[in-house]
Amino acid sequence: MSDDTNHRWLLAKRVVGVPDDSSWTYDEAPVGEPGEGELLVKVLEVSLDPAMRGWMNEGRSYAPPVGIGEVMRAYAGGRVVKSNDPRYEVGDHVTSLLGVQEYAVVSGDAVAKVDLDVAPLQVHLSTLGMPGMTAYFGLLEVGKPVAGNTVVVSAAAGAVGSVVCQIAKLKECRVVGIAGGPEKCAHLAEELGIDAAIDYKSEDVAAALQRECPNGIDVFFDNVGGEILDAALTALALHARIVLCGGISQYNATGPMRGPANYLALIVFRASMTGILVSEWFARWPEAAREMAGWIAAGKLRPREHIVDGLERFPEVLRMLYTGENHGKLLLRVAEA
Amino acid sequence: MSDDTNHRWLLAKRVVGVPDDSSWTYDEAPVGEPGEGELLVKVLEVSLDPAMRGWMNEGRSYAPPVGIGEVMRAYAGGRVVKSNDPRYEVGDHVTSLLGVQEYAVVSGDAVAKVDLDVAPLQVHLSTLGMPGMTAYFGLLEVGKPVAGNTVVVSAAAGAVGSVVCQIAKLKECRVVGIAGGPEKCAHLAEELGIDAAIDYKSEDVAAALQRECPNGIDVFFDNVGGEILDAALTALALHARIVLCGGISQYNATGPMRGPANYLALIVFRASMTGILVSEWFARWPEAAREMAGWIAAGKLRPREHIVDGLERFPEVLRMLYTGENHGKLLLRVAEA
Repeated sequence: MSDDTNHRWLLAKRVVGVPDDSSWTYDEAPVGEPGEGELLVKVLEVSLDPAMRGWMNEGRSYAPPVGIGEVMRAYAGGRVVKSNDPRYEVGDHVTSLLGVQEYAVVSGDAVAKVDLDVAPLQVHLSTLGMPGMTAYFGLLEVGKPVAGNTVVVSAAAGAVGSVVCQIAKLKECRVVGIAGGPEKCAHLAEELGIDAAIDYKSEDVAAALQRECPNGIDVFFDNVGGEILDAALTALALHARIVLCGGISQYNATGPMRGPANYLALIVFRASMTGILVSEWFARWPEAAREMAGWIAAGKLRPREHIVDGLERFPEVLRMLYTGENHGKLLLRVAEA
Repeated sequence: MSDDTNHRWLLAKRVVGVPDDSSWTYDEAPVGEPGEGELLVKVLEVSLDPAMRGWMNEGRSYAPPVGIGEVMRAYAGGRVVKSNDPRYEVGDHVTSLLGVQEYAVVSGDAVAKVDLDVAPLQVHLSTLGMPGMTAYFGLLEVGKPVAGNTVVVSAAAGAVGSVVCQIAKLKECRVVGIAGGPEKCAHLAEELGIDAAIDYKSEDVAAALQRECPNGIDVFFDNVGGEILDAALTALALHARIVLCGGISQYNATGPMRGPANYLALIVFRASMTGILVSEWFARWPEAAREMAGWIAAGKLRPREHIVDGLERFPEVLRMLYTGENHGKLLLRVAEA
């Protein structure tokens, strides 16, 4: 890869279902030149997130859709190689929406500087980045767990879920994680020390939740939707809080979306279901990151990334999210730090 | 009807779909004798409520199911005819779960005394009773409307919805009601003075909500579920509150329940959906009833009851709830006050 060429992945078309290789165009363009107040950032690691599927669709959402022919939007971390913003120096590491490409020109206002002395770049994209912040604020601000509560987490071995599980344990809750396959479940129980792990691929989730949550679910942190959300709704405790973080089971739906058929259980249990988006708490990210970095340093919170090398592999690596192949935060390494 | 015979409606069987006449047994039994601390109450007016459908089903809910062969559970108002509780005198009027029958023996602890000088008995079963309290606390405590908010109400001409509409107007909100048929819509717009009424039988509700709620829905008070809830989810404002009071479109479902397919809109709008049950605020009913009675006296809140005479007509009158034939709080008059 030459220093003056920028390889990048463009969205080729609107997609139905799981995005296949034809959804993308691999392209090269000259590396951009930063204008006043802008930076040129060499992208090192791209964060692959379930939310990206939504950005590919047309229509109103919390963020505008990625246009056809545009560089695919993605959070990423990189190193400043040119700076026209006095707040940043060449060699600084930053995170931002840098896109799925080798080089990004971005406004200095749109990036966050990260300190590699605190943690490696990959951790700034996982536990100290968007997924970790989502877990922290979603659980603590909306789930409001108190010691002794039962907290259930779906996609518990994922980037957000694994942090939710660990923070809930720190808050002295009974934590039940739902994940796919024995390996993920073993990781949850043995490495993260949660109280019970339910393998949705081999167990009846509704029955397992009844067994593992004898006093009902006080907080359900949902990343999945579909049958798992319906199962959780039947097992709530009075005044339960459902933190609605995502619905990955539905993101690639080709037929009608499936709503939670048991939603009237919210009345039975006087429960709430609240949608969250981590940008709500943007101003408080640094404060949370400091607390989380302290937990990491103390060995109370363990980041876990699943790093795959090679920008050219983006289409297949993105699909790992939807097949559940990743273990921990999925990152695509574009270049060595 | 003789003074020593108690006519009553018993649940005959578990029912699928809308309860037809074969769901019930019309029965007579001797009038009961109150024990220590109990009252004998002559039932005057029985409240017919959507929630009764749920009580007919087996299975865990917020209240145990009515047993086969048991008197159908219902809120009702009546007059004390014998009292073994010093707090109540013969001639007092009370409301309680008296059941669909002519005479009820109930504990003095389980009844609320009502003052017919404040309002007629029927109003104590409507605006000053369970439906009114549901509207008051659900809207104010969970919906938390502020002046200028857009409040949308489904089943807006019903017992709960019509009170929600009026309280929301008192709180200086823009109020949009959804109801079935031109007569109900005219009542809402002309008598209750709401800002817009949407006839779901003749209009596309999603399009009408977009038109009538240009700034989005801040509070959606839902009694209906189904397509109407799905339409509202697409038209929310940021940080909207959905007050989930009921789902009458689903209560008689014979197939799978229909969940809100658009529920992930809660994430897009960082919105919440919270189930309510009026018993949560039981201790505060008297306080709310005083405030509501003041609004009624000042002409700011108009009760509306739809009274049908004759205990023997119970099965057909109950069905009016599910066909939407009633205008205002549906009551079955068993005897003259």
